Amino acid sequence: MLNRQLIFMKRPFGEPTPENFEIQENELPELKEGEVLIKIKFLSIDPAMRGWMNAGKSYIKPVEPGEVMRALGAGEILSSNNDRFKAGDFVTGAFGVQQYAISDAKDLVKVDPEFLDLPVYLGTLGMSGMTAYFGLINTGLPKEGETLVVSGAAGAVGSVVGQIAKIKGCRVVGIAGGQDKCDYVVNELGFDACVDYKAGDLRKTLKEACPDGVDIYFDNVGGEILDTVLTLINKKARIVICGAISQYNSTAPQGPKNYLSLLVNRARMEGIVVFDNAAHYGEAAREMAGWIKAGKLNATYHVEHGGVDAFYDTLMKLFAGANTGKMVLAMD
Amino acid sequence: MLNRQLIFMKRPFGEPTPENFEIQENELPELKEGEVLIKIKFLSIDPAMRGWMNAGKSYIKPVEPGEVMRALGAGEILSSNNDRFKAGDFVTGAFGVQQYAISDAKDLVKVDPEFLDLPVYLGTLGMSGMTAYFGLINTGLPKEGETLVVSGAAGAVGSVVGQIAKIKGCRVVGIAGGQDKCDYVVNELGFDACVDYKAGDLRKTLKEACPDGVDIYFDNVGGEILDTVLTLINKKARIVICGAISQYNSTAPQGPKNYLSLLVNRARMEGIVVFDNAAHYGEAAREMAGWIKAGKLNATYHVEHGGVDAFYDTLMKLFAGANTGKMVLAMD
Repeated sequence: MLNRQLIFMKRPFGEPTPENFEIQENELPELKEGEVLIKIKFLSIDPAMRGWMNAGKSYIKPVEPGEVMRALGAGEILSSNNDRFKAGDFVTGAFGVQQYAISDAKDLVKVDPEFLDLPVYLGTLGMSGMTAYFGLINTGLPKEGETLVVSGAAGAVGSVVGQIAKIKGCRVVGIAGGQDKCDYVVNELGFDACVDYKAGDLRKTLKEACPDGVDIYFDNVGGEILDTVLTLINKKARIVICGAISQYNSTAPQGPKNYLSLLVNRARMEGIVVFDNAAHYGEAAREMAGWIKAGKLNATYHVEHGGVDAFYDTLMKLFAGANTGKMVLAMD
Repeated sequence: MLNRQLIFMKRPFGEPTPENFEIQENELPELKEGEVLIKIKFLSIDPAMRGWMNAGKSYIKPVEPGEVMRALGAGEILSSNNDRFKAGDFVTGAFGVQQYAISDAKDLVKVDPEFLDLPVYLGTLGMSGMTAYFGLINTGLPKEGETLVVSGAAGAVGSVVGQIAKIKGCRVVGIAGGQDKCDYVVNELGFDACVDYKAGDLRKTLKEACPDGVDIYFDNVGGEILDTVLTLINKKARIVICGAISQYNSTAPQGPKNYLSLLVNRARMEGIVVFDNAAHYGEAAREMAGWIKAGKLNATYHVEHGGVDAFYDTLMKLFAGANTGKMVLAMD
């Protein structure tokens, strides 16, 4: 059986181009003992993918040229040489950008598409949601009545951060690009306010939306937005550095020139990597599934179509901010 | 009696110039009930002075044009209308750049020049030493066997940070400007190593001096040095933001462009302000005085002479790095 695959060919400098990838069709090997064959249904499309394309030490090893592009996914087991899984089971795992994956099953997690839509297991109950949950709770340290600001508020992580912060009793202010996203964040996700950074004078509008200052800033974007929020933080504020989507394709990354606000305010800026919490994913997913079923957490996602051939365009749409909620690529 | 005073005349833009100040001689008013008259012996010359000259919200209110320039000092009481103090007592307080200060005595601290030299009460047992002590212990969280790097290693704060970190069992590496300072830091202060940032390729030399990476970075300078250290931090590193002397006179401050190393390493950057620990200065000073007397802590200082008239030049020497240890100005 042929497997259509996206091969990572060479490292991008700045923004990725189609030439960084090549589509190939390769014959699937036979299943070995313990392995399962998975038909991939959805791929998780993540800003972090850009970082995986870079050489050098990071929190995870880079993708090497010649390898299938790394991606998390959800799929259905077609055949199994492993006692723990049978054909028809649905699973998530690190499948790569391809139609089919063969896995030794060690890292597979069984999921139930009757209970929640498959993309939710990649988004709110996947890495994005785990990032939001542990980053907010363990590093943001939200307290009732505090003001939390989150950038990328309509995105996979930001949308969950804000909603959990509401559950924890915070005043929640989003930052997003465009009025439609801001309306969505307030009306569908229940944030107290959302500021459109594209509308100009972010500092003024954000200050108005945060009359008591900013106690927690959960940053997914970096750049000018991080610098602006730094001017509005309160004493002992916590800034969670989750990502910096505005910088990932930059060839001259920008540091937060207002970082001395940390000094003036005895504030903290701390980086997080979701994998550190792997031992606790299960508990978090159970709690979050409860919130979803109780209607307290909107597990929002955005589906693009076209499979392997649409990967590059979908990634570019993610960086352009085309999605509200988790961006997934359907493999149909 | 005439009092020679340095009046802060207008806010500097970038580096201060002599025109930002004016020397005046004004008649001392009569002492009111509860007040004391102090003859100032030494003034503490601090990088923070540059920040006090700026308008706008900070951790302390700015000095206003027309006021005596703010400075901490040590002096002798000449006459007293206050039961707690008598002529001949030595005290420290916020005296300002002038020959004599009149104080309501609320914030005065009695000191003993027989026990330790007066400048030590402005340095190792003053704000610089308190900054080092609380910043290192409460925010740096040193653990035995960890590697601590401190910039401004020959300066008032850095020299104390490194020595306390040694007492706490860390490997201690300084960063200083010039081979003389580096030799001093290693030979007189007992650091394990010191790297001369002026000698070129700081990253390479610092990496060699920190074979196990950097667990704690106590930053007094900011700029390129902060950016370099960010590339060498370990997982869960703590970066204490104490100051940024390289940036204070800059009209275009530079942010740490490698701040995403915080993310990769789940590391933390946190600002400190010494005043938050005021309730515990006494305990810290007693512990540090014990270390000084036991020969474990070298309470180093550098004296410039010339009183009020020499203030501007002394401040400029501080920014040029002319001092090893606490910079004080003798008022003789």
